[in-house]
Amino acid sequence: MSANLPVRAHRIAADIEALAAITDPHRPYTRRAFTPRFLEGRDHVRRAMVAAGLETRIDAAGNLIGRRAGSEPGTGTIAVGSHTDTVPDGGRFDGVAGVVAGLEIARALRDNGVPLRHDFEVIDCLAEEVSVFGVSCIGSRSIAGVLPPEWLDRIAPEGGDAAGMTLYEGVRFVGGEPERLRTAKRGDLKAFLELHIEQGTVLEGERIDIGVVSAIAGITRIEVIVEGRADHAGTTPMGRRRDALVAASDFVTRLDALARQRAVDGEGHFAATVGEFRIQPNAANVVPSEARLLIDARAELREGMDAFFRDVEGLAAGIAAVHDVTVQPPRVVSDNRPTPSDDGLLTEIEAACDRLGATRRRMASGAGHDMAFFARVAPAAMVFIPCRDGRSHAPEEWAEADAIALGAAVLYETVIAIDAKG
Amino acid sequence: MSANLPVRAHRIAADIEALAAITDPHRPYTRRAFTPRFLEGRDHVRRAMVAAGLETRIDAAGNLIGRRAGSEPGTGTIAVGSHTDTVPDGGRFDGVAGVVAGLEIARALRDNGVPLRHDFEVIDCLAEEVSVFGVSCIGSRSIAGVLPPEWLDRIAPEGGDAAGMTLYEGVRFVGGEPERLRTAKRGDLKAFLELHIEQGTVLEGERIDIGVVSAIAGITRIEVIVEGRADHAGTTPMGRRRDALVAASDFVTRLDALARQRAVDGEGHFAATVGEFRIQPNAANVVPSEARLLIDARAELREGMDAFFRDVEGLAAGIAAVHDVTVQPPRVVSDNRPTPSDDGLLTEIEAACDRLGATRRRMASGAGHDMAFFARVAPAAMVFIPCRDGRSHAPEEWAEADAIALGAAVLYETVIAIDAKG
Repeated sequence: MSANLPVRAHRIAADIEALAAITDPHRPYTRRAFTPRFLEGRDHVRRAMVAAGLETRIDAAGNLIGRRAGSEPGTGTIAVGSHTDTVPDGGRFDGVAGVVAGLEIARALRDNGVPLRHDFEVIDCLAEEVSVFGVSCIGSRSIAGVLPPEWLDRIAPEGGDAAGMTLYEGVRFVGGEPERLRTAKRGDLKAFLELHIEQGTVLEGERIDIGVVSAIAGITRIEVIVEGRADHAGTTPMGRRRDALVAASDFVTRLDALARQRAVDGEGHFAATVGEFRIQPNAANVVPSEARLLIDARAELREGMDAFFRDVEGLAAGIAAVHDVTVQPPRVVSDNRPTPSDDGLLTEIEAACDRLGATRRRMASGAGHDMAFFARVAPAAMVFIPCRDGRSHAPEEWAEADAIALGAAVLYETVIAIDAKG
Repeated sequence: MSANLPVRAHRIAADIEALAAITDPHRPYTRRAFTPRFLEGRDHVRRAMVAAGLETRIDAAGNLIGRRAGSEPGTGTIAVGSHTDTVPDGGRFDGVAGVVAGLEIARALRDNGVPLRHDFEVIDCLAEEVSVFGVSCIGSRSIAGVLPPEWLDRIAPEGGDAAGMTLYEGVRFVGGEPERLRTAKRGDLKAFLELHIEQGTVLEGERIDIGVVSAIAGITRIEVIVEGRADHAGTTPMGRRRDALVAASDFVTRLDALARQRAVDGEGHFAATVGEFRIQPNAANVVPSEARLLIDARAELREGMDAFFRDVEGLAAGIAAVHDVTVQPPRVVSDNRPTPSDDGLLTEIEAACDRLGATRRRMASGAGHDMAFFARVAPAAMVFIPCRDGRSHAPEEWAEADAIALGAAVLYETVIAIDAKG
């Protein structure tokens, strides 16, 4: 397949390998934003941009941007991008694959002598992962103009990377100008395209080349607190207990059943997980008095999330009644709405897949991505490529260079098609 | 009721009150073993023993013993006792009620001019509660000759009471002779009787005066580890997860149902509690990869515990199959067999109840007590008296002085009956 593509898989593999080598040697693969090693990685990307004929700059928010001027100034910018920061003990492909795809598209446009009317950019967004400042998507939030200004006062905790640094200082550390942060907001983007590994097993399982991402799911986190009564585990008869763990366990199993049902029967992607779960007093001989659980729910469609929240409320009331415990009303602790991809871009991406003979399916992204913020200021869309066993945020994360190349080729075709139309 | 009894409730109330006043003032009621305050409490008990006409000593294991010689030397000793140490933030009655009952029995024997053929003792056992050394029943284990000698090397942790002290030094601190610990073992006990608050709600709920304790339940602790797979909570479809929390929750609810069934249908007291429960990695956006739970099971009859353990094994296998997780074979981490009370003593206690017009019922103790160790070297039995709302190991722990007096009167009658028989 790769031989007939307008892009070169071996150059993609070389970039991936070069960035993989820039890691904390004791914790591969770790290249967290706001660290010296992150700047080393950025330096590789900047040199690759230059080699691809792009003019580089760092915007006020610390995004690294490589630019190729179009033949018709003022018609706007078509951008491809993702991020090069990692989580601790992360992988080689999450984010990196998208930036490297952008570099290869730039090289291919040059090699193939493709003229574009629009400006074209490759964007390495600053700090997509939850960084030392405890928040994510610093760069893309700034491009959308929605980074809360007070976040600049956040301080990296002692004992970790960039200890004691403020985010304001962090943006400056990577070459940005935090005092002019508002100028990072973009109004010129004609389209934003992102390639990313799926971080799931759908494409691999169905042997499909390209996931055409219809939407990034909304993420709502819901806290539920179950209050029972601490009793002596030896002396309190079974029938006279108000065991918070037994009640919370029943809640978890019923919630899982509800979520599975909604994932199968509901429209669009849906998943719900109890990721945090703690009991009090957590002592061998005491009937648990309290359980606290945090639900992470992801829904492609807002109506699905709203309906799920009503399910959770009903479940909480039911559990309280059945187990003679108190269940606090479920509390939404964070709530991000779903972000649909741009319909026109999805159509172009699918046409590009078909021209290249790449198999495809629409799917939602359960994880958040920079694209969700670009979508606030531009038509935006995303493609997924298969990765091995769905593993991600871990050293065993893996995607084939040929798979990345095919995705890059799809975006290459899409860029040319958008350029021709608009 | 109290007016017709051979014992005096107001003297019992005065002793309870005096010991309650000997507490860490910032954490009533706290009088942990091996602290200066414990020695203050002991001093009150010692003086009360002397005032009751008892000759006092501290045995090699640090038990405080008040003795009244019998008229027929060599016929053995009838003893009544419990403990005066508390847990942190404990109550005024747990243990104390039993020692104070012993003191009142001694006073009543003297006041009423009752001659006894056997020697009679009141024993304040050292450190029944889990002490700073992490173990319980130091004194009664020594009387039974089963204190593991290596326990004397245990060290109280820094930052707490008696920090840095060894148990060897602790026994010496309270006046014992740890180098002669083996001499604390008793072979002369004709009977041991203990009065204790129920720490449950059975007697209060059924308005019964005296719980005639048929046995101290065995306690078996069983660890169960459920291993699933850490997956991204957003990207992993519901149907492709191996969620350790969902599996463990199902385990807990089914275990609770099994335990309730066994408590109702099985012979003798039974209770099972999951008191400890933890998941990994316990992060909002990660499907839990592991859950560890600790079951505390109490059974009056060993066959009941054996059958329950088989239930747990079967449940573990079933959960593994249903949820596509690995469940490690349930592991017994500690196992204490049930201790039945002496049949002859139970009969005497019931006869005493009937003579005094005290209502009674047989019941098992779900909690452990000093009596369980005495039972290894002597006929032993126990009575429970009602306490408010079953609250214990907490400042609100409460028992009426009249209820303690009635229990003390039952033991007074029992002592006289045993003395007359043997």
